[in-house]
Amino acid sequence: MPHLHMEYTANLPQLDVDKALLRLNHGLVASGQFADEFDIKSRAVKVESFRVGTGLGERAFVHVKLALLSGRSPEIKKQLSDSLLALLQDLAPWPAELAVQLCVEIIDIDRASYSKAAVGL
Amino acid sequence: MPHLHMEYTANLPQLDVDKALLRLNHGLVASGQFADEFDIKSRAVKVESFRVGTGLGERAFVHVKLALLSGRSPEIKKQLSDSLLALLQDLAPWPAELAVQLCVEIIDIDRASYSKAAVGL
Amino acid sequence: MPHLHMEYTANLPQLDVDKALLRLNHGLVASGQFADEFDIKSRAVKVESFRVGTGLGERAFVHVKLALLSGRSPEIKKQLSDSLLALLQDLAPWPAELAVQLCVEIIDIDRASYSKAAVGL
Repeated sequence: MPHLHMEYTANLPQLDVDKALLRLNHGLVASGQFADEFDIKSRAVKVESFRVGTGLGERAFVHVKLALLSGRSPEIKKQLSDSLLALLQDLAPWPAELAVQLCVEIIDIDRASYSKAAVGL
Repeated sequence: MPHLHMEYTANLPQLDVDKALLRLNHGLVASGQFADEFDIKSRAVKVESFRVGTGLGERAFVHVKLALLSGRSPEIKKQLSDSLLALLQDLAPWPAELAVQLCVEIIDIDRASYSKAAVGL
Repeated sequence: MPHLHMEYTANLPQLDVDKALLRLNHGLVASGQFADEFDIKSRAVKVESFRVGTGLGERAFVHVKLALLSGRSPEIKKQLSDSLLALLQDLAPWPAELAVQLCVEIIDIDRASYSKAAVGL
């Protein structure tokens, strides 16, 4: 906890995914909501098959889903969502010829049934 | 909003994913539940590693998850789910030699913490 | 139902994904919570782009999400989560030079709006 999922459509080749994940993780650390930076597990998936709406014209999206152990207030969730969206917007320049939608969603993980173990190092 | 995720197992090569996404999106527009077709963001992911149950015999699945901003009634959700399932079934012919499970799930996105921005075009 | 998603980072090449899914499915059957083994639909996705925290050092994770039709008790969910985590740990040996986090999350699927159909065989 937390888990961050970033999906991005394949028509955004200029997006530097490694840089994006590092910035998002730094943003989560800076929020003060997480005791240990090591707990932040983020991944990005390129979406090769996608369709935005039904119209013509090339469209794209980046969708970030942040999953948190349940219990945080609506205010904290909204702050996290806004700060992640601002970080996405700062990944500019975005392509001018595409309509790109950036979205951030916060979801609860059921705390009572979450299990975790560390192995290896 | 809405976000649609379609997963399909890799043993369904005859599935025309682009056609499927377009039909699903047209179905969502036709539901009258969404103000702007542009808001519908759909993606499909081929699942290369999968296992259905523990038995022998080749099996497959297509799983559609529709994520909606919270607030819609159970009746609306059930209608959306049923109509998406009907659209999946209409993607026939399905392979006769495989046991294929088609599933549709509706999930709420927490409206209060959802953030979105449009960039580019 | 149930749906199991396993994500694993790409720096775990020794992980035998097919074996893992089969063991997890056998564990779910053994739990006695599911009427038919055929209903268990599991998939694994390799995560090529990921970042754990902000520190240096190589890190990895395996994240299992089990989605169940709503209605099971917190005790049942915790038992399922613990047993899946134990199965992950038993997929040893894990690499000694990596810090690997194993996580299991249980999530409800809204029962009222879930739709399913079988086609083919």
